[in-house]
Amino acid sequence: MPIQPIPGGVTAARGFTAAGVHCGIRKNADKKDLALIAASVPCTAAAVYTQNLVKAAPLAVTLRHLQNGAARAVLVNSGNANACAPGGEEAALRSCRAAAQALGIAPEDVIVASTGVIGVPLPAGAIESALPALAAALSADGGDGAAEAIMTTDLTPKVYAVRFEVGGQTATLGGIAKGSGMIHPNMATMLSFVTTDAAISAAALQTALRESARTTYNRISVDGDTSTNDMNAVLASGLAGNPEITGPGPDYDAFLAALNAVNGYLARQIARDGEGATKLVTCRVDGARDEETAARLARSVIASSLVKTMMFGADANVGRVLCAMGYAGVPFEPAEVDIAFSSAAGRIQVCAGGLGLAFDEARAKAVLSEGEVDILCTLRGGGGRAEAFGCDLSYDYVKINGDYRS
Amino acid sequence: MPIQPIPGGVTAARGFTAAGVHCGIRKNADKKDLALIAASVPCTAAAVYTQNLVKAAPLAVTLRHLQNGAARAVLVNSGNANACAPGGEEAALRSCRAAAQALGIAPEDVIVASTGVIGVPLPAGAIESALPALAAALSADGGDGAAEAIMTTDLTPKVYAVRFEVGGQTATLGGIAKGSGMIHPNMATMLSFVTTDAAISAAALQTALRESARTTYNRISVDGDTSTNDMNAVLASGLAGNPEITGPGPDYDAFLAALNAVNGYLARQIARDGEGATKLVTCRVDGARDEETAARLARSVIASSLVKTMMFGADANVGRVLCAMGYAGVPFEPAEVDIAFSSAAGRIQVCAGGLGLAFDEARAKAVLSEGEVDILCTLRGGGGRAEAFGCDLSYDYVKINGDYRS
Repeated sequence: MPIQPIPGGVTAARGFTAAGVHCGIRKNADKKDLALIAASVPCTAAAVYTQNLVKAAPLAVTLRHLQNGAARAVLVNSGNANACAPGGEEAALRSCRAAAQALGIAPEDVIVASTGVIGVPLPAGAIESALPALAAALSADGGDGAAEAIMTTDLTPKVYAVRFEVGGQTATLGGIAKGSGMIHPNMATMLSFVTTDAAISAAALQTALRESARTTYNRISVDGDTSTNDMNAVLASGLAGNPEITGPGPDYDAFLAALNAVNGYLARQIARDGEGATKLVTCRVDGARDEETAARLARSVIASSLVKTMMFGADANVGRVLCAMGYAGVPFEPAEVDIAFSSAAGRIQVCAGGLGLAFDEARAKAVLSEGEVDILCTLRGGGGRAEAFGCDLSYDYVKINGDYRS
Repeated sequence: MPIQPIPGGVTAARGFTAAGVHCGIRKNADKKDLALIAASVPCTAAAVYTQNLVKAAPLAVTLRHLQNGAARAVLVNSGNANACAPGGEEAALRSCRAAAQALGIAPEDVIVASTGVIGVPLPAGAIESALPALAAALSADGGDGAAEAIMTTDLTPKVYAVRFEVGGQTATLGGIAKGSGMIHPNMATMLSFVTTDAAISAAALQTALRESARTTYNRISVDGDTSTNDMNAVLASGLAGNPEITGPGPDYDAFLAALNAVNGYLARQIARDGEGATKLVTCRVDGARDEETAARLARSVIASSLVKTMMFGADANVGRVLCAMGYAGVPFEPAEVDIAFSSAAGRIQVCAGGLGLAFDEARAKAVLSEGEVDILCTLRGGGGRAEAFGCDLSYDYVKINGDYRS
């Protein structure tokens, strides 16, 4: 059975419910700002975090709570990052205790995360007050509500789930994510929460998550800013009944493929919905010395402000792509680079052997005007290939970030 | 005698003339696109170049021409980068030969540079045709014309000169520069040409230029894109009559101080006139472990899209400054960071010990609304200090770069 998309997101897998409510952190009462995901049974759990030296308080709390590789709930607020503000850890702990009390579990089994403005104290009281109602609202249909509640400047909720086969059983894996701003490789400013009913040990889950984040979330760039709050966490309930995955093998590979399918989809959704973005831009590099070299080149192209504005203007200025490859800080032979742009409107080669080609401007404009555009860079240096995901840079990015707090 | 600003730019020093004309590379006949700087005597010369792996053809030619540390002229075109296009080196050589013939000097004594669109063949014929008239137009008043001719999306020409004392003589040092887009540390997309009548050996000149570029041009960021064409070259005629500077000592220090004064001024002008910029933003970091750590932190703040849009919106969102320090990739203690914003409208502290402070929003808005704003970050990690220069990110940056070629 191939991996199949199914509805349901973070509540698609057996054993999980979710809900999202407005608790008052955000001024707008119509905007949900608190999400809860709960498991009916003890789960193995794993997480990866931002590599920013300045880390939000909930990350420190979650890191401690996951030391035993187990968890039963995820509590997330939007509207406040709980970073660089007094009393941050205590506010995060209070949130965990309130969730634990409402769910009848231990506070150490709660994963806590925040997103929003930095430097303002988190109103933990609002979270505490909202938790009884939030816990009461948990349901198997609540994945979308949770996805909405974690959004900041996101325009659309990000939800995806798949069904796959592992160890002779049918398992499910699904997730929700938020992105939009402060999005850059090495976790991006994003939150992503995945649940699965596959049985997998905490150690194998951590390995799979790290491997998957490397080629999905860590290959996104919206604005070059790595947030203080990034977190990608996974809970596994084991209710699919497959023999527990504990290390390398076909079952691990099947699980990783499903995890990559969900994380890859959510990562592209985050790039597509970057602040002010009008299109998803993917850069694929083939023929680099190795995968890491390919990834560095692809990310440098995706992160370039000049490439991003060119994509916004649908102006096929290939020199900017070559230039961004040139300052990526990895070795390649500029005279061996071929570049093409590709989209639903067709494919047009604009560079061969490191030299710009004459091309039909109108056709190039048509190719670059689509909602999803690929930049295809082919080298002759080896077998390394990688993709990176980003978006264009528009007037709206400036507008959104020129006055984010108001 | 302290260092004193004087008029004249690149023709202020004894022995130099300059001119700028329209030769036809640009469509607009009113926009000068070819500049020539000539020395009346043989000069020692030095240059530093972009660190982009993809290098424009004129850089390779200039590198060869400067191997003997001597030059007598600088030829620069705007409107075409002569990068990633067929026949680039031959076009650069033809330009040098035409300049040499018009001036009666050897082609190897010509420094050649280009700026403009990448990937389009340079029309060397237009340069050859224009050179007799350009050489005839050379004058001691021509520095401004040359400064205009090297502009691309720059709004203002960048010109500065100083008088200083060295070895008992009064010497002069002045320059012109262009910037605007593809501006980032490690030379930025910028060209800068400096002349001096101080006597200094080629080796000492190269050392001084490298040292000066490190703390001036390499501390600018407009958009994070390091160009394929950056070059900063210096010619020294020796006509001031000071004993030749050949190595460390008070005379070298006096020369370096003058070079830093001119390069520092031009660097700030480039940042102030970044594409779409409405203000000059300077980040000063004090108390870092060492100067390099301070410089990395300051540049990370200056380069952050979120800090740049916040500066455009005059919104004192200090979390973005802390966040950008956190992903700079250098060690510091987040809990020891104090941050203030400062401008002609006053100074306001917004962060103490890594935690955001409550502050008067109206006053902060006033401070950030000035044309020059400083971000002051004070650590307690040591004696390292550094400044980095940049600008805000505005709607106009997107507009300019969404359709640069048209």
